[in-house]
Amino acid sequence: MAVVPAALPTLLVLDADPLPRLGRLTGRARVLHTDEASLAARLPAADVLLVWDFTSHAVRAAWPGEGPRPRWVHTASAGVDHLLSPELAASDTVVTNARGIFDEPIAEYVAALVLAMAKDLPRSWELQQRGEWRHREGGRVSGTRAVVVGSGPIGRAIARTLKALGMTTAVVGRVPRTGIHGPQDLDRLLARADWVIAAAPLTEQTHGMFDTRRFGVMQPSARFVNVGRGPLVVEEALVQALERRWIAGAALDVLTTEPLAADSPLWHVPGLLISPHMSGDTVGWRDELGAQFVELFERWAAGRPLKNVVDKQRGYVPGH
Amino acid sequence: MAVVPAALPTLLVLDADPLPRLGRLTGRARVLHTDEASLAARLPAADVLLVWDFTSHAVRAAWPGEGPRPRWVHTASAGVDHLLSPELAASDTVVTNARGIFDEPIAEYVAALVLAMAKDLPRSWELQQRGEWRHREGGRVSGTRAVVVGSGPIGRAIARTLKALGMTTAVVGRVPRTGIHGPQDLDRLLARADWVIAAAPLTEQTHGMFDTRRFGVMQPSARFVNVGRGPLVVEEALVQALERRWIAGAALDVLTTEPLAADSPLWHVPGLLISPHMSGDTVGWRDELGAQFVELFERWAAGRPLKNVVDKQRGYVPGH
Repeated sequence: MAVVPAALPTLLVLDADPLPRLGRLTGRARVLHTDEASLAARLPAADVLLVWDFTSHAVRAAWPGEGPRPRWVHTASAGVDHLLSPELAASDTVVTNARGIFDEPIAEYVAALVLAMAKDLPRSWELQQRGEWRHREGGRVSGTRAVVVGSGPIGRAIARTLKALGMTTAVVGRVPRTGIHGPQDLDRLLARADWVIAAAPLTEQTHGMFDTRRFGVMQPSARFVNVGRGPLVVEEALVQALERRWIAGAALDVLTTEPLAADSPLWHVPGLLISPHMSGDTVGWRDELGAQFVELFERWAAGRPLKNVVDKQRGYVPGH
Repeated sequence: MAVVPAALPTLLVLDADPLPRLGRLTGRARVLHTDEASLAARLPAADVLLVWDFTSHAVRAAWPGEGPRPRWVHTASAGVDHLLSPELAASDTVVTNARGIFDEPIAEYVAALVLAMAKDLPRSWELQQRGEWRHREGGRVSGTRAVVVGSGPIGRAIARTLKALGMTTAVVGRVPRTGIHGPQDLDRLLARADWVIAAAPLTEQTHGMFDTRRFGVMQPSARFVNVGRGPLVVEEALVQALERRWIAGAALDVLTTEPLAADSPLWHVPGLLISPHMSGDTVGWRDELGAQFVELFERWAAGRPLKNVVDKQRGYVPGH
């Protein structure tokens, strides 16, 4: 084993398969790997924690333990809800996220779901399995109205992409600003939307925001898409809204419990499409996430200001 | 029954369900309806024939019969391959089509198929039926290359829509002109395309153009979409190309035989998506087709030049 000078910062990686490419950090960091079980024991030794397993909630549990804590935590995800414990939020530790990597892929995924629902593609493939030729009429997307809830870079990329398809879009954020509606406009916008796209971070304010009342405000022809975080939606309320035909359809790429259990009744709700939290994950995404972290590490090691710094009170990276 | 002056022109409608709204022609035309079986007998009485049942090939069979023929034939479709017999082509009868109605709907449908294939949506819904959560990586569409074969308004609308999604597009037509490649560029373009979209009219030149050789030119990662006419594609060649993994996937909205028989093996070819010739048919399309015919009829009755006049030698409406 190579002798590593003690002065090198220690980078602890909460592993997931496949591991990140950290070759560029050779000789510049002491890299330790950990699984969820060993995280609490290894945390005190770490200057930096890379939450490569962004599906893990282990940081939240391990953080309040004994000993020193890392000065910087980076998560290979846009959302920080899985790690942002009150103790981490109250600490001096800087948290950064993978802002920017997922914007365009998620926007394309939303466009794919919107167009697939408009053109009734899931039904066509169901009929195909049965060898049944049954002509139907599709809908147009051009000229329809979408409301995107979430005004971060992901929400804004979604709005841009839907606009490019001829749709009218409105973006709703926590704070009204140029081109962004505030929360006070939400119900009025929902009431006339053909498409409602949830792309907000999971915070105290957004938890359960899509509930019985909000689905009740929507048009019977409206369709709902969630690419944010599962708990934005009260799942029982969505199921009821679909069953009562308060809305015409829905697609969930994120769920309250992931992975969704094989015996969950959600798999089989008519009008509900489910995909396994993959909207932002396109070929090469892991390399991009690794490269983004390496770039941030180089900034940090050089004493330059980090980017993508999360406002730990708000639960996301503020800004434009 | 109202007495209709003999001087009124006779409009014969080859019926399909639902019937067109021709109320605006009341008192301006003697409207006769026919099914396929009675078409030959009624044709001599008609000044104008409206081929409302655009799936029918009965005109082709009935046209060479005895007696006078209509002076004008309009089909409620973009393609004219189903009616353009050599006898009709050689006659003085003017043929018009529904140019313009289908452009944007078909462009959206192609975008829906391209995005659905890129994001592996059919597989997600297959997994959903089995209650299986299996994360995969999708592809990006932005930055990928599409070749659209067919330079009419439908092909050009497809190219515009794919471009709006960040794709690079090339359009191939019969005659090279500004922004349109000629047939001599086709193989070179196919060899580097991520997406090949067939949207050409069915003519002697395009019949069977997607054959073993052309699928063999494409990249193993390429996906093929046909929204033109079924016989543009040699279906056995496409099946082989998919089985041999010469290409990565395909979607056919049009087939050589429509409706596709319930026992056709095409329904069950892995990597092949089938939909029942519905790409252009969005809610309200029949009303648009009816209104378009009424407008053309008013021009014709007033002695003004018709629009959407088919070049019967070429088999489509030429021009930009």
